[in-house]
Amino acid sequence: MKRAFSHLDSGGAARMVDVGSKSVVSRSAVAAAVLKCASGTIRLLKAGALKKGDVLAVARIAGIQAVKRTAELIPLCHTVPVTHAAVHFSVKASSIEIRCEVRGEAKTGFEMEALTGASVAALTLYDMMKSADKTMVIDGLTLLSKAKG
Amino acid sequence: MKRAFSHLDSGGAARMVDVGSKSVVSRSAVAAAVLKCASGTIRLLKAGALKKGDVLAVARIAGIQAVKRTAELIPLCHTVPVTHAAVHFSVKASSIEIRCEVRGEAKTGFEMEALTGASVAALTLYDMMKSADKTMVIDGLTLLSKAKG
Amino acid sequence: MKRAFSHLDSGGAARMVDVGSKSVVSRSAVAAAVLKCASGTIRLLKAGALKKGDVLAVARIAGIQAVKRTAELIPLCHTVPVTHAAVHFSVKASSIEIRCEVRGEAKTGFEMEALTGASVAALTLYDMMKSADKTMVIDGLTLLSKAKG
Amino acid sequence: MKRAFSHLDSGGAARMVDVGSKSVVSRSAVAAAVLKCASGTIRLLKAGALKKGDVLAVARIAGIQAVKRTAELIPLCHTVPVTHAAVHFSVKASSIEIRCEVRGEAKTGFEMEALTGASVAALTLYDMMKSADKTMVIDGLTLLSKAKG
Amino acid sequence: MKRAFSHLDSGGAARMVDVGSKSVVSRSAVAAAVLKCASGTIRLLKAGALKKGDVLAVARIAGIQAVKRTAELIPLCHTVPVTHAAVHFSVKASSIEIRCEVRGEAKTGFEMEALTGASVAALTLYDMMKSADKTMVIDGLTLLSKAKG
Amino acid sequence: MKRAFSHLDSGGAARMVDVGSKSVVSRSAVAAAVLKCASGTIRLLKAGALKKGDVLAVARIAGIQAVKRTAELIPLCHTVPVTHAAVHFSVKASSIEIRCEVRGEAKTGFEMEALTGASVAALTLYDMMKSADKTMVIDGLTLLSKAKG
Repeated sequence: MKRAFSHLDSGGAARMVDVGSKSVVSRSAVAAAVLKCASGTIRLLKAGALKKGDVLAVARIAGIQAVKRTAELIPLCHTVPVTHAAVHFSVKASSIEIRCEVRGEAKTGFEMEALTGASVAALTLYDMMKSADKTMVIDGLTLLSKAKG
Repeated sequence: MKRAFSHLDSGGAARMVDVGSKSVVSRSAVAAAVLKCASGTIRLLKAGALKKGDVLAVARIAGIQAVKRTAELIPLCHTVPVTHAAVHFSVKASSIEIRCEVRGEAKTGFEMEALTGASVAALTLYDMMKSADKTMVIDGLTLLSKAKG
Repeated sequence: MKRAFSHLDSGGAARMVDVGSKSVVSRSAVAAAVLKCASGTIRLLKAGALKKGDVLAVARIAGIQAVKRTAELIPLCHTVPVTHAAVHFSVKASSIEIRCEVRGEAKTGFEMEALTGASVAALTLYDMMKSADKTMVIDGLTLLSKAKG
Repeated sequence: MKRAFSHLDSGGAARMVDVGSKSVVSRSAVAAAVLKCASGTIRLLKAGALKKGDVLAVARIAGIQAVKRTAELIPLCHTVPVTHAAVHFSVKASSIEIRCEVRGEAKTGFEMEALTGASVAALTLYDMMKSADKTMVIDGLTLLSKAKG
Repeated sequence: MKRAFSHLDSGGAARMVDVGSKSVVSRSAVAAAVLKCASGTIRLLKAGALKKGDVLAVARIAGIQAVKRTAELIPLCHTVPVTHAAVHFSVKASSIEIRCEVRGEAKTGFEMEALTGASVAALTLYDMMKSADKTMVIDGLTLLSKAKG
Repeated sequence: MKRAFSHLDSGGAARMVDVGSKSVVSRSAVAAAVLKCASGTIRLLKAGALKKGDVLAVARIAGIQAVKRTAELIPLCHTVPVTHAAVHFSVKASSIEIRCEVRGEAKTGFEMEALTGASVAALTLYDMMKSADKTMVIDGLTLLSKAKG
């Protein structure tokens, strides 16, 4: 019987799950998050920073770099070779939606990479916007899809 | 006039804000997040993994280590000396609440450190529980409080 | 003739050994270390910290994470994809025995990964126990076995 | 009453000890380790590699770099500003003795930095000598002294 | 007498220079580099990528992040708290000039931080432009100025 | 039609290029750089530090370690498994020439790894020589060759 929590051995000790017998196949994952903020913050952003500034680029790069460092952050994650990573933003009236997609060829999936990328991109936006808005919340950090082969 | 987005210079280019003239004072920040999951997952967790297993300890350590690496993840954050970091969990019927508190003495606050710690602790729980539950969402990642002096 | 010290070229300069012509096979390694401490420290540990505390979990996670970062620490090590890592402890009357096992598929072995994991797990125990015991020594850090295929 | 294991809170949860109220003073620590090997390995080393090669320099640099990264490796360590780090070797008949000394000004001591530096220097020697010697053991990793003020 | 190469002890062994007795003062450094490329590459860049694309923002962020990680890259550098970092670009007819400025309060200067930031920003531009231009060279990586107090 | 700047999508957003469909083949790259300094600095170096000191070894190790961390420094680089890395120096009358060669098996080339290794080796020499010479410049950082198969 498969263990409910595969990262724990029979004694409850954490371990990196043995994926040695799984095959290397092409895999992808897409994760999302939403940074909720005041509508005035979005207006300020649109009035200047979004047009001429680096705001989205900085968050995009932070997300992509976090994708590559997921196994350093999430203790039981395997180090997996990412062949593609991208972060997309959709600026709404009082929020910014973040989507992170990751592809690679590995014995395990890229869910944690996509989630970590979306999370760090959202936190980077939060960092750059926090001098203007003290009410922000990051919601809806979740996996949208994963695929194999 | 203070710029709305202090991480951008007058031309819109990202930079690390100059905090050289601010004074080093004792500062703290507390951030929270909620990992929402199926109630059955919490029951499974309580039936075994929480009692004898490392689940919460792993997520706690991941959060504390992420606190210390915030400036590597969030591009425009300053490297600040953390004097205390702790991550607390509260296991509810169909969620786990995460709280990360950080203290230190620096020229800038520890908001991003607390938020990053809460976020990585939540993601680490997600990673360990994802073999049992495909419906999880991380919500409410936000700053609860910050203080100075 | 094979060079005695393969990490040095004919002029004595350090280099990463070229493993390009070796084949990718399944490999494993097990390393051990012993943290020697006062028997009173072990009694204190058993009286409380081991029962309800995170002591072993913290050291286990530190060891697993160090396994993944071996190539950053040991300059001439190759970056190799680990498919399994685990750290086990055996608490004796006046010592804690540490065993770290690592598996993966690569052109080189996982000895240094297993040794680094055992070493960092032992150091992490030392760190958490040093407020109670000033006499600790880490001994017997060595390779127990390695296998291929 | 001071807790026996200060890294655990009253519930047994790991945390970074709050050192906020301690004062920043000049502190130093010296740690040692011994790499035991076959006497033939030392003879081989002396016959060539030690004279013209980078062996000790590589291990020295690895140790110094590890000193600076201690807080990334040992989860509950504070990030502390090192003002001096050095690694010394003493080549014996069938062993190499390693000594790592660290100084800095901080609210906590540099024991873990010195121990981590000695450990990684020893592991780096092990790595470079393992093609010539399968019998090596690292022993006696311990703190020689620490001082304050 | 001051040693010509202060990073070497009297036996020639590398070490982190002891800066414990130096005082913490405000310091700054500015470094420059030039990425030389074909004039057609600059025209292509101006025709599109510079207008709507992230090219300069990506290189700027890479440079700022490298500033913060200098002590991990340059073995004998001290870890110093950066209070300000910025990277500026000047796009010429057949080159891009890079300037990196760094400020902080420390016992040692920020030359290596500024040089490392300029270098990594230049390499990041090279990376993004290498699919269009095989002739690029990075020249003139040097310190423009440093100041104290 | 192939995009001129493959790291930008059609909207100008940075991304890691998708190399999923490329095949894993043996690849190599060689990069060079020149550290220009005063001839007196070279004489000083030859009079002592080069003979008995670690100068070149430190820079060599820094370069090799940087090769392995290229994907952390250059945001859009893929993490690729290096099977060989070496750094060579040629000490001239008033300069030190640096050459870094890298080999591996991957879906993308090792240009950025070789360039990053050469750059960090040059910066490390600069760091160790800067107490003796304030006139140094790093020039000619470029790719000498790349090969496949």
